[in-house]
Amino acid sequence: MTDDIAVTDAKVLIPEGISVRVRVPASSANLGPGFDCLGVALGIYDEVIVETTADGIEVEVAGQAADEVPHDGSHLVARAIARGLSAGGVIAPGLKLRCVNAIPHSRGLGSSAAAAVSGLAAASGLLAEAGIRPPFDPDELVQLSSEFEGHPDNAAASVLGSAVVTWTEQGGAGSTPENRYRARRLVVHPDITATVFVPDTESSTSFTRGLLPDSVPRHDAIFNVSRAALAVVALTADPTALFAATADRLHQGYRAEAMAPTAALVAELRERGYAATVSGAGPTVLVLSIGPVPGDVREVAAASGFVASTVAIAGGVEITRSSD
Amino acid sequence: MTDDIAVTDAKVLIPEGISVRVRVPASSANLGPGFDCLGVALGIYDEVIVETTADGIEVEVAGQAADEVPHDGSHLVARAIARGLSAGGVIAPGLKLRCVNAIPHSRGLGSSAAAAVSGLAAASGLLAEAGIRPPFDPDELVQLSSEFEGHPDNAAASVLGSAVVTWTEQGGAGSTPENRYRARRLVVHPDITATVFVPDTESSTSFTRGLLPDSVPRHDAIFNVSRAALAVVALTADPTALFAATADRLHQGYRAEAMAPTAALVAELRERGYAATVSGAGPTVLVLSIGPVPGDVREVAAASGFVASTVAIAGGVEITRSSD
Repeated sequence: MTDDIAVTDAKVLIPEGISVRVRVPASSANLGPGFDCLGVALGIYDEVIVETTADGIEVEVAGQAADEVPHDGSHLVARAIARGLSAGGVIAPGLKLRCVNAIPHSRGLGSSAAAAVSGLAAASGLLAEAGIRPPFDPDELVQLSSEFEGHPDNAAASVLGSAVVTWTEQGGAGSTPENRYRARRLVVHPDITATVFVPDTESSTSFTRGLLPDSVPRHDAIFNVSRAALAVVALTADPTALFAATADRLHQGYRAEAMAPTAALVAELRERGYAATVSGAGPTVLVLSIGPVPGDVREVAAASGFVASTVAIAGGVEITRSSD
Repeated sequence: MTDDIAVTDAKVLIPEGISVRVRVPASSANLGPGFDCLGVALGIYDEVIVETTADGIEVEVAGQAADEVPHDGSHLVARAIARGLSAGGVIAPGLKLRCVNAIPHSRGLGSSAAAAVSGLAAASGLLAEAGIRPPFDPDELVQLSSEFEGHPDNAAASVLGSAVVTWTEQGGAGSTPENRYRARRLVVHPDITATVFVPDTESSTSFTRGLLPDSVPRHDAIFNVSRAALAVVALTADPTALFAATADRLHQGYRAEAMAPTAALVAELRERGYAATVSGAGPTVLVLSIGPVPGDVREVAAASGFVASTVAIAGGVEITRSSD
């Protein structure tokens, strides 16, 4: 999360009694060679219904991590709503949120980015419903959610759906007014099936990110450059290249010790010819394949404590306004 | 060039009097971020007519560098033919080559790779015409020509045409039986125009390659990874992303001092918003644009000694057998 964005000195209040419903998909980032730049939206959804109220912030949460997240204005979705309303020049006197979460937390499935996207999309819907401004366009939602949460390959996947390539205009992490996040949506080949192998352990992205070295061998850089280009070919046009296209030398190896069971499962699956990669910063493993992963492979993963689920390649965030 | 390939201990002679004609396009490799892995075929063609004879090697060359290349068995096309025939288990008692070359030499337009491809394609045609074996398939031609010449992004572009993503199965340069060169052809968006800016100076790929460091900043690696993925999107689906998709931090900067006028022209063109990149190892500059580059920009380049030419995105190598 970053808070280094200019917050509008908003004085205008959005009316109470306006509501909007948002549904946002999970995502898998750092796809194979595509550290910080290749993500795919997955058909596991968080939903939130937001209503403007006279005062106070009320947060109901059901589902994943319901008892672990804050139930006040520090709730990530509430903060993202406030950010979005601020971008529209208004504040809400009060908010009521009802969240139903299916995306597991701290598993490398983009739950934080999904929360950011859902809050900003909700704000977009509220602003439009109140007649204050048109909804944010997809580029604006990508920018706002990426700078809010910090992982554009997750955030853009949750905004745009399908798979995405993301970059910053001037390179480097973070975002300034001159260094905006950008994204392009790919049309994923219809033969591709996604399977997530989710363990019962958590990971901290900020911790695992600290394991990456400041400099890398040039040959490894070139390796990932070629495989990332190939990944776009494999995802859109030629799924037979998925195995080669998901190989990586820039991030997974450095983090392997911090998530040994995940690294072992990736290695085992790749040994069997599956295009397996750490999902985000782990510990979930993602496999992209032509057709479903067979039962015996799922059993191998289950023996290591990973539950396999076939998930759809998802569409982007959906905003339903009460006037729709 | 590498010669570390097993040469068949061929005893069988291919009959004399067989001829084949080959036309092969130029190519631009190291496209933007895609060092060693992104190439595009350009509509400048070398042609060669090869005929098997009773003995001796006779080489006629017209066009580019006609007086600078050897006119015996050490001629690059002749060597590539011998390699190809060897792969088919035969040798030729004699060869007559008539070459008409349009691809400038030592300009970063893949003339060496084109020579390798033309020789191997000629061998393929001769083998088929003699009934010794079917023509090499495109994957075989990519492998043979890449290992013969060493630049798969040039060789594969000349073989397959259009644009290509190349990689080696196990990463790293060079090729062994277990580390084959691979390539996928992209369908280039029809709105894309290629313009080459060719100077009257030469460059040595082996010298400029020596300027690259063994390790690179991780942020630069990630930068190129994201832009290389974007390059595939830009080349195939969204040419509006070409400018961002041709940015590079892994090779052009390190080589800039060795080709100051080229680096200056790339910078000048990019300052004007053109997707300019060093072609191969230079000194030619390639611009990919939507529609032709206007006259005033060509004049700026001309003032620096670069002649601008709009060139087609080319098809792959063409082999015409005398029985066709």
